[in-house]
Amino acid sequence: MILDSAYAPSHAVANIRGSAIRDLLKLTERPDVLSLAGGLPATELIPAQRISDTAARVGADPASLQYTVSAGVMSCREVVADYVGSRDVEQVLLTHGSQQALFLLAHALLNPGDLVVVDDPVYVGALQVFQSVRARIRALPITAHGVDVDLLRQWLEAGERPRIIHTVSNFHNPAGVSASESTRIELARLAEEYGFLIIEDDPYRQLRFTGQGIEPIAAHSDRVVLLGSASKVLAPALRVGWMSGPPDVIRLVERLRQGADLCGSTFSQLVVAELLGDQTWFAEHVGVIRQEYGSRAAALTSVLRGTFGERVTFAEPEGGMFCWVRMPGVDTSGLLLHAVAAGVAFVPGAAFGVEADFGDCLRLSFATLTPEELVEGVRRLAIAVAALNREDLSH
Amino acid sequence: MILDSAYAPSHAVANIRGSAIRDLLKLTERPDVLSLAGGLPATELIPAQRISDTAARVGADPASLQYTVSAGVMSCREVVADYVGSRDVEQVLLTHGSQQALFLLAHALLNPGDLVVVDDPVYVGALQVFQSVRARIRALPITAHGVDVDLLRQWLEAGERPRIIHTVSNFHNPAGVSASESTRIELARLAEEYGFLIIEDDPYRQLRFTGQGIEPIAAHSDRVVLLGSASKVLAPALRVGWMSGPPDVIRLVERLRQGADLCGSTFSQLVVAELLGDQTWFAEHVGVIRQEYGSRAAALTSVLRGTFGERVTFAEPEGGMFCWVRMPGVDTSGLLLHAVAAGVAFVPGAAFGVEADFGDCLRLSFATLTPEELVEGVRRLAIAVAALNREDLSH
Repeated sequence: MILDSAYAPSHAVANIRGSAIRDLLKLTERPDVLSLAGGLPATELIPAQRISDTAARVGADPASLQYTVSAGVMSCREVVADYVGSRDVEQVLLTHGSQQALFLLAHALLNPGDLVVVDDPVYVGALQVFQSVRARIRALPITAHGVDVDLLRQWLEAGERPRIIHTVSNFHNPAGVSASESTRIELARLAEEYGFLIIEDDPYRQLRFTGQGIEPIAAHSDRVVLLGSASKVLAPALRVGWMSGPPDVIRLVERLRQGADLCGSTFSQLVVAELLGDQTWFAEHVGVIRQEYGSRAAALTSVLRGTFGERVTFAEPEGGMFCWVRMPGVDTSGLLLHAVAAGVAFVPGAAFGVEADFGDCLRLSFATLTPEELVEGVRRLAIAVAALNREDLSH
Repeated sequence: MILDSAYAPSHAVANIRGSAIRDLLKLTERPDVLSLAGGLPATELIPAQRISDTAARVGADPASLQYTVSAGVMSCREVVADYVGSRDVEQVLLTHGSQQALFLLAHALLNPGDLVVVDDPVYVGALQVFQSVRARIRALPITAHGVDVDLLRQWLEAGERPRIIHTVSNFHNPAGVSASESTRIELARLAEEYGFLIIEDDPYRQLRFTGQGIEPIAAHSDRVVLLGSASKVLAPALRVGWMSGPPDVIRLVERLRQGADLCGSTFSQLVVAELLGDQTWFAEHVGVIRQEYGSRAAALTSVLRGTFGERVTFAEPEGGMFCWVRMPGVDTSGLLLHAVAAGVAFVPGAAFGVEADFGDCLRLSFATLTPEELVEGVRRLAIAVAALNREDLSH
């Protein structure tokens, strides 16, 4: 192994913030630990048999195993255009998961020093991307109604000129909440007035188990690139995501994408086209996920209230995979060690803070555990909190 | 559609050189045109039934449809480590095709202005990547023995300090030739002496149909990242490529990769693990491809000689997919229009020139047409050359 300056990291990589907490989380992958730390969808709800059958049929034709064009297989783009309510297939480009959409957009549009506004708490995958292009990053607090548009307006009026605003509009990761309709309309209006682009990151849209769906920000302005993915509704390993947005932006991304990885998988895209395109089957399948996630979320929030009462605050999730819990006075990074000892894991809020701290918050995923396991997980969490409190008293 | 400065391309994208010729080639995708212009492997030689059967079995387990880690599924990394002769699985990282390996390496290691040396003629996908990180690019001529190491040594002695040298070592795209053993040894020695990293791009290694295999550059130095791919031996749509190299480099790439697209496809990687790992089947399967490509190459070179005699020069391909032909005195970009009119397509040499011109060269792929089609293609090419000559005389 050679260690020398020839292998020095680029500024791009050096600028990606590491995370001690994320490293620590690797230690929690023990089989005896009930993990509420994950960001995965429930494995047992992946429609494996349907995917397997479709893959067998699609894969038997060698043409479906060839290269495709950078924008993706046309039949899949058409199905996705319909799925996201886009009028024009030219506005849809398929990516290798929606994470790649984010990465390509950042690299196609941003130069070092350009201002990007993200959520606080932030989807860490977005933060890493904007760090890798060495953007200047500011972070807007997420309120109960989504991103704080009043503060954004103040920044804009004070002369800040973001190129891009990235936000997760539905069932925020990690904050759990969705942007209200008025937040969405105001964001769209500000984008028009001040000439920035909104990246509306929306992987969880279909996972609403209660309340009314809200039109995407993209419904209110053309200055929006809407990101979506098959990962949370079909399967992550298909690695099919997409962006839908202004043709000028799509063309720039297409140009970069040839160098990035030539193209996506014809095979996977044909499988996704068939499954998303079978609307009757898909509606039923997503209905099952919704119902299951809804039961799990209800079990988690009920036991959280029953166990911790006034010592926790959180918004009741209406969909998605996450519950963002505040435990005033508790250092959740310190709590994690006790939690792992008690056999439960979560992600401490500090992992998601940009300008804010979130040191007393934690992200709990309810997607991958049964209601019974969630109840047991919270019981163990209470043991951990008690242990942390004893430790604090003994100092 | 909004056209304004908010959608201005980044320096990265603006620096990727477009190609009028590549745009022109889109016009050649007519069904009546015999295309020797492609870079695809033969569709009918893709083992679709075996892939379909494997995909059906692998996909039936929902766990194989979940996310994986950024470096890839361990069982596939192990098979690939064995396949490339690497001692250590920690030195292997799976990518979304080997193009992504190239992109991630460039972005993880290079800053704007860093010197990168590429081949001339160049694999265009590599040039685009190094342009996108705004590297300073110099290009070394490809000789009959591979890259011109004598000229490289002169550059190094004159004080040039490349960070990376990228070269296609076997059956060069587009130049057809392979680096000799002495070229490989000298490149490795210079890397050690001057402290640069070699990216040895080797997607065609298995496709040798005549002559003796030569050890990779990576056998002579640790300062090499060896790239490979399942695209040319199994199927492009699996989108499984890899890099094998110094652990320090692998770790930097892994860090960038999380933001780039999180991870590859568990599903595809498990399919590749099974097919590459079934050594008996794989050897037989690749044997069929070799034999078929060998017949096609022989048919092409024979008819080229018979048709054009002394008016063309080329090296007899020993493997791979391409024959690089020089037609002294012929402007091959001008020839393309006549060729398409006559029902045949190729890529003019100018598409691959960095510092050199290659205006009298053309790249012919023999991979996707039958011997009979190749004979007919060259007959049409002769018609096109005659038409070009008449045009020249009439001016």
